[in-house]
Amino acid sequence: MKKHLLSALVLLLSFTAFAQQEPLVSPELHADGSVTFRILAPNAKDVKMVGDFVANWEPQTMTSSSTGLWTLTTKPLASDLYSYNVYIDGYKATDPSNVYLIRDVANVFNVFIVPGGKGDLYRVQPIPHGSVTRRWYDSPKLGLNRRLTVYTPAGYESSRAKYPVLYLLHGMGGDEEAWITLGRTPQILDNLIAQGKAKPMIVVMCNGNVVQEAAPGESSLGFYQPTFELPHTMDGVFEESFPDIIKFVEGNYRVKASKTTRAITGLSMGGFHSMNISRYYPNTFDYVGLFSPAIHPERDSTSKVFLNIYKALQVQKDNGLKLYWIGIGKSDFLYKDVAAYRRTLDLVGLKYTYFESEGGHNWANWRVYLSEFVPLLFK
Amino acid sequence: MKKHLLSALVLLLSFTAFAQQEPLVSPELHADGSVTFRILAPNAKDVKMVGDFVANWEPQTMTSSSTGLWTLTTKPLASDLYSYNVYIDGYKATDPSNVYLIRDVANVFNVFIVPGGKGDLYRVQPIPHGSVTRRWYDSPKLGLNRRLTVYTPAGYESSRAKYPVLYLLHGMGGDEEAWITLGRTPQILDNLIAQGKAKPMIVVMCNGNVVQEAAPGESSLGFYQPTFELPHTMDGVFEESFPDIIKFVEGNYRVKASKTTRAITGLSMGGFHSMNISRYYPNTFDYVGLFSPAIHPERDSTSKVFLNIYKALQVQKDNGLKLYWIGIGKSDFLYKDVAAYRRTLDLVGLKYTYFESEGGHNWANWRVYLSEFVPLLFK
Repeated sequence: MKKHLLSALVLLLSFTAFAQQEPLVSPELHADGSVTFRILAPNAKDVKMVGDFVANWEPQTMTSSSTGLWTLTTKPLASDLYSYNVYIDGYKATDPSNVYLIRDVANVFNVFIVPGGKGDLYRVQPIPHGSVTRRWYDSPKLGLNRRLTVYTPAGYESSRAKYPVLYLLHGMGGDEEAWITLGRTPQILDNLIAQGKAKPMIVVMCNGNVVQEAAPGESSLGFYQPTFELPHTMDGVFEESFPDIIKFVEGNYRVKASKTTRAITGLSMGGFHSMNISRYYPNTFDYVGLFSPAIHPERDSTSKVFLNIYKALQVQKDNGLKLYWIGIGKSDFLYKDVAAYRRTLDLVGLKYTYFESEGGHNWANWRVYLSEFVPLLFK
Repeated sequence: MKKHLLSALVLLLSFTAFAQQEPLVSPELHADGSVTFRILAPNAKDVKMVGDFVANWEPQTMTSSSTGLWTLTTKPLASDLYSYNVYIDGYKATDPSNVYLIRDVANVFNVFIVPGGKGDLYRVQPIPHGSVTRRWYDSPKLGLNRRLTVYTPAGYESSRAKYPVLYLLHGMGGDEEAWITLGRTPQILDNLIAQGKAKPMIVVMCNGNVVQEAAPGESSLGFYQPTFELPHTMDGVFEESFPDIIKFVEGNYRVKASKTTRAITGLSMGGFHSMNISRYYPNTFDYVGLFSPAIHPERDSTSKVFLNIYKALQVQKDNGLKLYWIGIGKSDFLYKDVAAYRRTLDLVGLKYTYFESEGGHNWANWRVYLSEFVPLLFK
């Protein structure tokens, strides 16, 4: 019977797929870290790969065989998570042999992981796993029922212990899915906790776009094209509504509700949010992280959100905190802004830990920053 | 500052997307239910849409303009969730203007929902929402730590009530993601509960492939090509290990642990599993559903799993149960097998409710069957 069902289902599948293709292995990972891509496109004149496995996403022309099988083998790649698209005569497509796809704002690309180094931190390993929950909370301040994502570490449900909480914020165009999918947060946390490098903690990934109930496709707006351009992302409204999230988390999870057991960090716009939230509520977080943060108080001195920033930072500093962590890539377009903000912190006398990496404003860096930041928390 | 960040990010995005395309609206839903697709492929000679919005997935040739914009407008479509792929000169691709993608075994397609009828049941509505958790449990019988997906209805966390449980099983090639993504289970349950048509209940979506820890990409096997062909899917091993799941659920959730508050259903192979599990443990479930089930005891009379089937069904019948529900499409390739199984039930005298729909072995039907079955439970 199994064979009968199997044949029928395979027939059904090839029926729906109409231009049936031989199963190809793509990408194929080799022992030396190089990767071979295979794309069957007999009618194409030009097939290119575009991915972050080459510098600056430089398009790579694939080589065609007489059967229309286009191939490309990379040089050995450092262990990491990589993303790519395929361009068929200029048409942006994906690799049909690779079902692993991630959305970044309005772009969907294939991903793969080269193991053997930091990529191992992004893989599911045979260790205890935390739970990931998509859940809705009320924000009276925003007048919305909103969605957030919560990671609880392995053992949370069967324990009676109380846990510290990391609030982990996305960037512009992101949402409560970003750190789960692009950020590999559950994998990084599972691995760091299992290795004894991080304390078990709850991670709350909320939605920093105050006009959204939820990520695109997950709200009553239905399926629509995601965009970077949303109102009220960086004018202080999210910051003002943040106590609704803390109240929900501390009322609904077994958490240690104290300054020493709260951390907040975010990337880009989420770094801006983390900086502001931590000084708006200046005795709430002992741990603050800014990943490639979009902060430039001088340039935006007229913005309401930056009113009294120096005084607020002074208060935050005077209250004391255990870690103020900044990560930025050398070629990030915000590098100079971060340098200026560091001078501000120096003037205020607020001590920070500075982590400078290669590369720019991208998820390869933000995964590294998360992996560096989390082990420093709640020690 | 927001404008500065926005411009930089848009530049960064177009940089990584290299062949920048004008934002298109595709699919565009019209008031009469017709849908327009737009595909920009100036170098293509032939662009086709293949989707379940036409009978038999018949390929539809798109019409090209002088600018290389290919368009297609459907006739008015009945309200439903539809899926499609785009073929660029025969290359299976997706619609880059539509980021909503779902994987079915090894095939990834775009989806859209036509509202105004049953499609409304598959949409996120502005109503209270349940939570969806990906969580791991121990199966001593299988010697594995395994992943499952749990829907808890709105209000579960803040209530002290105990809830009934529906175990909802996938088909061959599926996993613990299938009912969430393809099945729109959280949306269907949220909507039916909010409309007062279904009792609030917990829904447990487990993985019926006993060799898997978790869905492809979610286990320590890493990213690999999913396949229909897995060992030990229909030989009784999953059935024998099922008590591990019940034990986990009843030990970890506020559930009513009794026959009257347990239901089990599944599609195709999951219908086979539901039939077997409900008779292996013949006094455990008052509600049993078989959606397009793959059951043919006569043909597979030598299979261990079917030993003593008639006797077991007799015992199940004698114990009494409230609902034995069968759904099948008129053009399902399993239609005759289901008819034969119905004759078996008639011989045994086990009463069942029979629901016959148009169409075949597909998710359009399984979403309907779920929507029909759930309101009958725990009344």
